[in-house]
Amino acid sequence: MAEPVSKRSEMSDEIGSALPKVVEALCLANEELLRRRQRRLGRHILPSREAIVGIVDDLRAVLFPGHYGAADLSDAGVHYYIGARLDGALLALEEQVRRGLLYACEHCTADCTECAHRAVAVTREFASHLPEIRGLLGSDVQAAFDGDPAATSLDEPLFCYPGVTAMTHHRIAHELYRLGVPLIPRMVSEIAHSATGIDLHPGAAIGRSFFIDHGTGVVVGETSVIGDRVRLYQGVTLGAKGFPLDDAGNPVKGLPRHPIVEDDVVIYAGATILGRITIGRGSTIGGNVWLTRSVPPDSRVTQAQARTEAFESGGGI
Amino acid sequence: MAEPVSKRSEMSDEIGSALPKVVEALCLANEELLRRRQRRLGRHILPSREAIVGIVDDLRAVLFPGHYGAADLSDAGVHYYIGARLDGALLALEEQVRRGLLYACEHCTADCTECAHRAVAVTREFASHLPEIRGLLGSDVQAAFDGDPAATSLDEPLFCYPGVTAMTHHRIAHELYRLGVPLIPRMVSEIAHSATGIDLHPGAAIGRSFFIDHGTGVVVGETSVIGDRVRLYQGVTLGAKGFPLDDAGNPVKGLPRHPIVEDDVVIYAGATILGRITIGRGSTIGGNVWLTRSVPPDSRVTQAQARTEAFESGGGI
Amino acid sequence: MAEPVSKRSEMSDEIGSALPKVVEALCLANEELLRRRQRRLGRHILPSREAIVGIVDDLRAVLFPGHYGAADLSDAGVHYYIGARLDGALLALEEQVRRGLLYACEHCTADCTECAHRAVAVTREFASHLPEIRGLLGSDVQAAFDGDPAATSLDEPLFCYPGVTAMTHHRIAHELYRLGVPLIPRMVSEIAHSATGIDLHPGAAIGRSFFIDHGTGVVVGETSVIGDRVRLYQGVTLGAKGFPLDDAGNPVKGLPRHPIVEDDVVIYAGATILGRITIGRGSTIGGNVWLTRSVPPDSRVTQAQARTEAFESGGGI
Amino acid sequence: MAEPVSKRSEMSDEIGSALPKVVEALCLANEELLRRRQRRLGRHILPSREAIVGIVDDLRAVLFPGHYGAADLSDAGVHYYIGARLDGALLALEEQVRRGLLYACEHCTADCTECAHRAVAVTREFASHLPEIRGLLGSDVQAAFDGDPAATSLDEPLFCYPGVTAMTHHRIAHELYRLGVPLIPRMVSEIAHSATGIDLHPGAAIGRSFFIDHGTGVVVGETSVIGDRVRLYQGVTLGAKGFPLDDAGNPVKGLPRHPIVEDDVVIYAGATILGRITIGRGSTIGGNVWLTRSVPPDSRVTQAQARTEAFESGGGI
Amino acid sequence: MAEPVSKRSEMSDEIGSALPKVVEALCLANEELLRRRQRRLGRHILPSREAIVGIVDDLRAVLFPGHYGAADLSDAGVHYYIGARLDGALLALEEQVRRGLLYACEHCTADCTECAHRAVAVTREFASHLPEIRGLLGSDVQAAFDGDPAATSLDEPLFCYPGVTAMTHHRIAHELYRLGVPLIPRMVSEIAHSATGIDLHPGAAIGRSFFIDHGTGVVVGETSVIGDRVRLYQGVTLGAKGFPLDDAGNPVKGLPRHPIVEDDVVIYAGATILGRITIGRGSTIGGNVWLTRSVPPDSRVTQAQARTEAFESGGGI
Amino acid sequence: MAEPVSKRSEMSDEIGSALPKVVEALCLANEELLRRRQRRLGRHILPSREAIVGIVDDLRAVLFPGHYGAADLSDAGVHYYIGARLDGALLALEEQVRRGLLYACEHCTADCTECAHRAVAVTREFASHLPEIRGLLGSDVQAAFDGDPAATSLDEPLFCYPGVTAMTHHRIAHELYRLGVPLIPRMVSEIAHSATGIDLHPGAAIGRSFFIDHGTGVVVGETSVIGDRVRLYQGVTLGAKGFPLDDAGNPVKGLPRHPIVEDDVVIYAGATILGRITIGRGSTIGGNVWLTRSVPPDSRVTQAQARTEAFESGGGI
Repeated sequence: MAEPVSKRSEMSDEIGSALPKVVEALCLANEELLRRRQRRLGRHILPSREAIVGIVDDLRAVLFPGHYGAADLSDAGVHYYIGARLDGALLALEEQVRRGLLYACEHCTADCTECAHRAVAVTREFASHLPEIRGLLGSDVQAAFDGDPAATSLDEPLFCYPGVTAMTHHRIAHELYRLGVPLIPRMVSEIAHSATGIDLHPGAAIGRSFFIDHGTGVVVGETSVIGDRVRLYQGVTLGAKGFPLDDAGNPVKGLPRHPIVEDDVVIYAGATILGRITIGRGSTIGGNVWLTRSVPPDSRVTQAQARTEAFESGGGI
Repeated sequence: MAEPVSKRSEMSDEIGSALPKVVEALCLANEELLRRRQRRLGRHILPSREAIVGIVDDLRAVLFPGHYGAADLSDAGVHYYIGARLDGALLALEEQVRRGLLYACEHCTADCTECAHRAVAVTREFASHLPEIRGLLGSDVQAAFDGDPAATSLDEPLFCYPGVTAMTHHRIAHELYRLGVPLIPRMVSEIAHSATGIDLHPGAAIGRSFFIDHGTGVVVGETSVIGDRVRLYQGVTLGAKGFPLDDAGNPVKGLPRHPIVEDDVVIYAGATILGRITIGRGSTIGGNVWLTRSVPPDSRVTQAQARTEAFESGGGI
Repeated sequence: MAEPVSKRSEMSDEIGSALPKVVEALCLANEELLRRRQRRLGRHILPSREAIVGIVDDLRAVLFPGHYGAADLSDAGVHYYIGARLDGALLALEEQVRRGLLYACEHCTADCTECAHRAVAVTREFASHLPEIRGLLGSDVQAAFDGDPAATSLDEPLFCYPGVTAMTHHRIAHELYRLGVPLIPRMVSEIAHSATGIDLHPGAAIGRSFFIDHGTGVVVGETSVIGDRVRLYQGVTLGAKGFPLDDAGNPVKGLPRHPIVEDDVVIYAGATILGRITIGRGSTIGGNVWLTRSVPPDSRVTQAQARTEAFESGGGI
Repeated sequence: MAEPVSKRSEMSDEIGSALPKVVEALCLANEELLRRRQRRLGRHILPSREAIVGIVDDLRAVLFPGHYGAADLSDAGVHYYIGARLDGALLALEEQVRRGLLYACEHCTADCTECAHRAVAVTREFASHLPEIRGLLGSDVQAAFDGDPAATSLDEPLFCYPGVTAMTHHRIAHELYRLGVPLIPRMVSEIAHSATGIDLHPGAAIGRSFFIDHGTGVVVGETSVIGDRVRLYQGVTLGAKGFPLDDAGNPVKGLPRHPIVEDDVVIYAGATILGRITIGRGSTIGGNVWLTRSVPPDSRVTQAQARTEAFESGGGI
Repeated sequence: MAEPVSKRSEMSDEIGSALPKVVEALCLANEELLRRRQRRLGRHILPSREAIVGIVDDLRAVLFPGHYGAADLSDAGVHYYIGARLDGALLALEEQVRRGLLYACEHCTADCTECAHRAVAVTREFASHLPEIRGLLGSDVQAAFDGDPAATSLDEPLFCYPGVTAMTHHRIAHELYRLGVPLIPRMVSEIAHSATGIDLHPGAAIGRSFFIDHGTGVVVGETSVIGDRVRLYQGVTLGAKGFPLDDAGNPVKGLPRHPIVEDDVVIYAGATILGRITIGRGSTIGGNVWLTRSVPPDSRVTQAQARTEAFESGGGI
Repeated sequence: MAEPVSKRSEMSDEIGSALPKVVEALCLANEELLRRRQRRLGRHILPSREAIVGIVDDLRAVLFPGHYGAADLSDAGVHYYIGARLDGALLALEEQVRRGLLYACEHCTADCTECAHRAVAVTREFASHLPEIRGLLGSDVQAAFDGDPAATSLDEPLFCYPGVTAMTHHRIAHELYRLGVPLIPRMVSEIAHSATGIDLHPGAAIGRSFFIDHGTGVVVGETSVIGDRVRLYQGVTLGAKGFPLDDAGNPVKGLPRHPIVEDDVVIYAGATILGRITIGRGSTIGGNVWLTRSVPPDSRVTQAQARTEAFESGGGI
């Protein structure tokens, strides 16, 4: 009695028969988005998240070959290993940068060889900054070791600390942002955000020896400026307090609207700091604080006192 | 002098010899869990996380083929591409829905063809709502662009914003939840939670043009109701304040216990809003606020003032 | 007119020609890090993140074969399945433990067979604790079901709850930490941290029936001690308030500096609890509280009252 | 001057616009083939080559766990390893056998639970013959070692000899063929044929200690019968001389039409032996011989003499 | 006593130190080959074997979606499935054809947009022939079923017969060859050659209903012409007898130098047929025959008689 | 009416219950093989086919980086690319060579550091021969181009000719064989045999400019000696005519027993040449010839004439 099988087949066909109408509707919904893109440029034109994931993996391996690359490098091999992965990474990056530039180019039917040339120039420029990026990341790793009593060696932050992962992505993304590459920097940052819960906008300018401990929930906005030897804990927000709208009611883009954090500041877990204010050098901001005005150097800001009382049976909270 | 090798072999055997006892204990520990399931239903019966990851990937590609699907679609190809991935997704979804239904079915030895039939009906119904889901997501993408001065185009939220990822999963999961599918909706949500740090219970009803910025740490509970054009920042909780226990001391399931957030509300980073309260339309809730009572429309709620003092050298915080 | 192609080739060569100088600089930057390691030990010596991901996957499958392993086990097959994956996991773990021990070994050129022997002993000891770990995790799953009105069955926490994932990693990592294995425990924890946003230091001692709901942003520090039947919500920090520096200005490592949380405590979302203080049994800590002093049993701690006011048109927050 | 890009886009669209017509034609071409299958049975019904590749890999690992399975088994682990892979293999095999039976079933809408029951019975029966198959393969490996001066150990045939691979597949396929499973046995054989160039029809009955050296081009037909201790070299064909047609002009299927090769026969490279003839025990057939009549025991058959002459300059061959 | 480890490290370094010299020598050996290519065209210019493997897989799936594509197509889904895979295949093919054309283009710096245009035209033309290719392959499958008493259904040749695989590749490769695409057709053929042992040069013109049984070792040369309903067995060669050299001593390329095989010819295993001769229609060529002159229609050619003698004990062969 | 599901579960359990007995029998069958190996050496000791596949891929990429490696190398990148893949290949090769040596070592418990040292020395020696191997392969590629009128460029043999693949593996395998490495050389050869149908024993000594056309079915035995500029076609065997047995009835291993083929010999398809005979320089051996005696230089050997007759209707062959 094979009915169940044939029944199921009919049932499945029931689903199949609904297909054309849904497909039609979804085609329609995407039509404008896709057609506009196709008409202007042709296919293959948007950056690819997969490609960018691969590029960042390569760059991490090139920056710290013993920790993120192969565990089994010989002394003689390191040189070749760095060169080979870097060559591949730059080739791939040039293509993604070109896509990013084409994407944002206003007059692209008129000047796309300009985009191609600029992709090469930008990639070359980016490459030349890698040693400097490596130096900054070295200072971040040292800051992590110095700032966390739980760290037992310089290798531990490199292997285990989400803050180091986030900063590696950030310093790469920030350089691309600085070079005017559209879309790609943000994609680099979001890959780290997804892996670490740390959301650093590529636009944020961050000094040496920066350490984010634990890190989940940290948000640093686009126009933030952070000095040297700053330490953040999980859940810290450096955000905008609001933003002016233009005449059409859209937010005005690009204005400085996030905090300036000077050298040697420590900000504890969950603090929310909003607006173009300045946290003076050497200040300490306590956990869970909500702060929307500047504080002078060496300030100490803490939350108002919590209330404790005896627990009454039967009550919730 | 080959001793190290043979020694090591013996050492390894030392571990191997411990195996049977541990295996025995772990078999025992899982016995009840597994036997009960086997006896009632047979194998192959639990939903598979891998399958659901694949289904959601397909559905995302079908909803935004140019961004989450293939980057290189021709105009003519979009139609086929959507159709092919949707067909595969629905076939796989039907199987997972069937497993979910069988799993929850009380009398399953008596009515599993009912489950199979319902899986088909549910999948078909789900498919027919995809264009509507696409419409809502389109409004969310627009809201992200409108609400973030850092966004430079409609493509940027689609490529980079965790809030858009979370809402894509949520609108899929919510539809399955609404159709009464057990387990699967929660699995869909948790995949997004893991990737974005945004935890939206599939039961939450969310209106059009919803925007979650940054998003890490956002929690929206099962019975939450959210209006149109609402904006949340990272770390916002819409939670339950507590829950009544039944006579056996277990929590009573299914009661409305999470907030109602009306249209055009903005809730800033880290706000914790608990219980079946109502945030009146147009209200703004400040960062880090702890709120357990309703507020009327157009309210503005902020945290008590933080305390600032001069930093005393030598002190910690 | 093929110029664009040949032009592009020249452009790419332009990037290529920059390679040697950058490679040289990056070799130099890593030289000391790598040379020191090579000289002392030889290659293949650092633990591998990929290997550890695989080991934890195996161990999860061994602990809950029906949920994290194969969905299609026969009754007869469970026994073999557990045994085979456990055998593989222990073999791989022995190697990683050996690498961890070698890494940390002060006198390693003099005693590495000691490391190898200890790796076997530690792995064997670890294996013998797996049934106990399984028992504790069983209590955690039950606590999740009991503590969340949204949970519909014991399977749901196993399939969907990040807190259960985090605790599975933690109980494995804590056992390895207890056995004195360097680096590996932290790597196990960080894999879960990345997937769940829950950051439990392997050193933390956690009792039975522990439940973390939602979980994103939870941080539990190295020397925390947590009793039985404790419940945490998202964003809770059990952290250090600061740490003494030694004469060289480095943090003194290993001192007890995180909270003790006694049995039956509930800590709500976003609470930050810092320092070696004690939260007395049965206490409830409210959301977003900042707490740096001990509270007696059955306390109820809440944030100072939030301020509500009428919303003034035109204002930001 | 971006023309190349936009030109190329148009060109690609030129291809895209041809799509619908070609798709239509190919749908039409497959319609009958597919519709017939769909109507009778429903989807999911044909065996899967990928699944069968996996099953044979599992079975090889189970038969020779040290050579085709994991290289790193502990003594204690072998037991679990064999059990786990065998359990998986049998589960998958049951499904493929069911598909094979359904495929061939004349009255399948009326009796498919019969097919399902038979799949279980067949799989169980197959499993019970695995030790016997292992025994035969053990004799084949020994024959390879004994028969090839180039073999240096019993492990070498297991690691390197295509003849051993082919026989492993064959002995599995022959058992399934013997049990009346449609399609699957031939698929098992063809996987080996592709990898080794040795084409053994699953129907061929082959005795103990069978050795095929080099093997490329060997063909053994469906109704061949081969005794013990037979040795074949590359390019040997045991084929049919022709086949009677039925009244409709189609070949009559299933008749004995291939050679019987008795014990201890050796057949050298390139010999072609056709028809239901008997090669008497202990005979030797020379290379490149074309043989279509029986030979008595202890015969020695060689090709007619080749002609040698002086090479004339300027000539080809 | 950790010496073995450190010793081994030193030993490994011993290998590493040899690296630079070997690398240098290999760079030198490839320099001319690579530099010539780079200078003329730029990178990314050679066809990719991986890409071509993917394209052929797609085309096979498009030609026989139920057998080489997804096993689980719904009736409604076939249409989309064919369209989507074909769209992808054609896009990828256009790129590979362009690379092939650029590769062979004499004046490529002067006319590469010509290559790009021709790649589009060729791909479009190729696509339009797919239904015809499908028709021819349908006749081949039928011929396999009709010609092999061991075949039990039309599905069996599609699933299991290497001859059908080889012909699918060949009919694709031949069309590309006919359209003047360099390199790619041969790569398509060699992929099948590797999998089946059947070596059909893309240039060979082959009629309808062609069947190669078993197939290992079959070689059909570039200028062969084969009629309808021809059947070949394993090891058959249709080759060149020799080839004239030009004044520089190189073989003159492109001359007709392989056999013409007319309709309804059968050629048995191992026959070697060389030179531009004609095998008249309806002829049968016996196994292992060596034939270098034309034969009239309805001929029957067999090998000279083999010699049989009694086996003398002690002798080899 | 859910019976089919529960029935099937029971049925599957029926299979499961057969498991223990079969597992037991298979454990027993492998016990001796495995125990012997374990006792002598420990785990991890046999060479791994996967590792060797990877090593050969690396070496091919290093020898012809533009064809088998990355298609997109920049001029500057080639140097790094070769170095990085070679470093990885040698590291992996050292480990496999060590395993091969340990495997074959008679007194291994007494001298395995000798094995480790020898593995390093052998690997280093092997590396130093790579430029020479590259030179020989260059001559083989040129010979393929010169000897095949169908070849259109030097790149075509590198991309498409199985003979070039086989020779690349062979020249690697032969060097390892010459250096006395057990097992590994044969594994390298068999990987090529499986892909090409060309079976070249690693022991065979082959001169410069060697070309195998088509190649399927070619067999070249262990002690063959082949001069410069030799050309073989498909199906050629250079084999042993028989082999003396020792007193125990086992073949005496290692004796010269395969042909010597002098410079400039051409051997056509299907020729079988057996025994330690010499084919004089400049000779041509016709297709399908069976040859067991030496021939002087400049000989021309062809098969006895085939017999042609009129085809009689109704007859088979």
